[in-house]
Amino acid sequence: MTDAHGQLSATPRTSLRRMKEKGHHDRAALLDVLRAGFVCHLGALVDGDPMVVPTVYGFDDRHLYLHGSVASRSLTTDTDVCVTVTVVDGLVLARSVFEHGVNYRSAMVYGRPRWVTDTEEKLHGLRLLTEHVAPGQWDHARRPNRRELAATALLALPLAEASVKTRSGPPDDGDSPDAALGLWAGELPLVARWQQPVTDPALPPTAPVPAHVAARAGTRVDRH
Amino acid sequence: MTDAHGQLSATPRTSLRRMKEKGHHDRAALLDVLRAGFVCHLGALVDGDPMVVPTVYGFDDRHLYLHGSVASRSLTTDTDVCVTVTVVDGLVLARSVFEHGVNYRSAMVYGRPRWVTDTEEKLHGLRLLTEHVAPGQWDHARRPNRRELAATALLALPLAEASVKTRSGPPDDGDSPDAALGLWAGELPLVARWQQPVTDPALPPTAPVPAHVAARAGTRVDRH
Repeated sequence: MTDAHGQLSATPRTSLRRMKEKGHHDRAALLDVLRAGFVCHLGALVDGDPMVVPTVYGFDDRHLYLHGSVASRSLTTDTDVCVTVTVVDGLVLARSVFEHGVNYRSAMVYGRPRWVTDTEEKLHGLRLLTEHVAPGQWDHARRPNRRELAATALLALPLAEASVKTRSGPPDDGDSPDAALGLWAGELPLVARWQQPVTDPALPPTAPVPAHVAARAGTRVDRH
Repeated sequence: MTDAHGQLSATPRTSLRRMKEKGHHDRAALLDVLRAGFVCHLGALVDGDPMVVPTVYGFDDRHLYLHGSVASRSLTTDTDVCVTVTVVDGLVLARSVFEHGVNYRSAMVYGRPRWVTDTEEKLHGLRLLTEHVAPGQWDHARRPNRRELAATALLALPLAEASVKTRSGPPDDGDSPDAALGLWAGELPLVARWQQPVTDPALPPTAPVPAHVAARAGTRVDRH
């Protein structure tokens, strides 16, 4: 469903409706949002009704890998799922309530997931997932043993059908009749940052924090 | 589906599986998560497949109100939806990759939504939504006129069937055999804060920022 130029297919469900916002169908925009996000929301059918569960993910050029423990109950792999990653960048405060909005980056990936059973691919997917969420930890922490690998449910979803929507910038009513109201309008940006690490109370408080963890304090979650 | 004590019903789809995490079925815990969240993810069926869209919300004791413009295409109101609000509080860095996790607060609300058509209820819902997302703006900005009200799609979902899950605290492997590895472990908290407001470039840069907007800079998004 991608052409030779890496364009994502524009299927009916990925077509865009809100014209004030920006839509993208290219792979680079998709990967940008996946990189910026931290958790995704997986929507799947359970007994015929949609269920939306938050979970962590990793990705490469071809697949999104989702941690399946939360989702284990949530899905059979004989129906499509929708995985949405959303980064909120701020609030748009307009002159009218009607024009208020949110600045955001969001990606929706659709498709039929499969459970990863091959050991090599499972290690690959878990490494991607770990390094997306907790860079440096794949090399720092003890890697999964055979028993843990078997106990870990990992879903793979092809990065083939997706849409990306973003909104940024000031409110849209700066040149509308409402401008005459003389009200303040603008943006209130929102930034999520990693804080100082908190050592496990089971360790001595003087236990040295690894450099790759300490370096993350103060950095933005959306800037990998 | 709530009893006299305000307990939420524990239906099969809200029953809890991951025993290390905390599950709640009381209304106070649900309202806490709804207060702490900023956007929700609405899962609905579109042509038989799940679609998950981010949108803003407001709530009172009885209903969740969802802004429908993003969702207009997404749903008919003849099937159930699932609305999930997730607040990520940090990363759990354990001795083993297997025990890594996320500290979070999450609420899932299930039910059959309806489009709000009554003008009074629509104003009520839009006020709740505006004041949840942008406190103070309902009184500051121009309120919706008749045309805008008609053009605004608002969904109401009863707060009747829901589950809340949270995880907090240090990793779980502090007393496991992995403790002997001598690796650092702990938490990396994540906090999202409102930044300094950015005045619309259509206004003079000296336009005074209203007190209720200026006061928000530096505050946490999850602390209303």
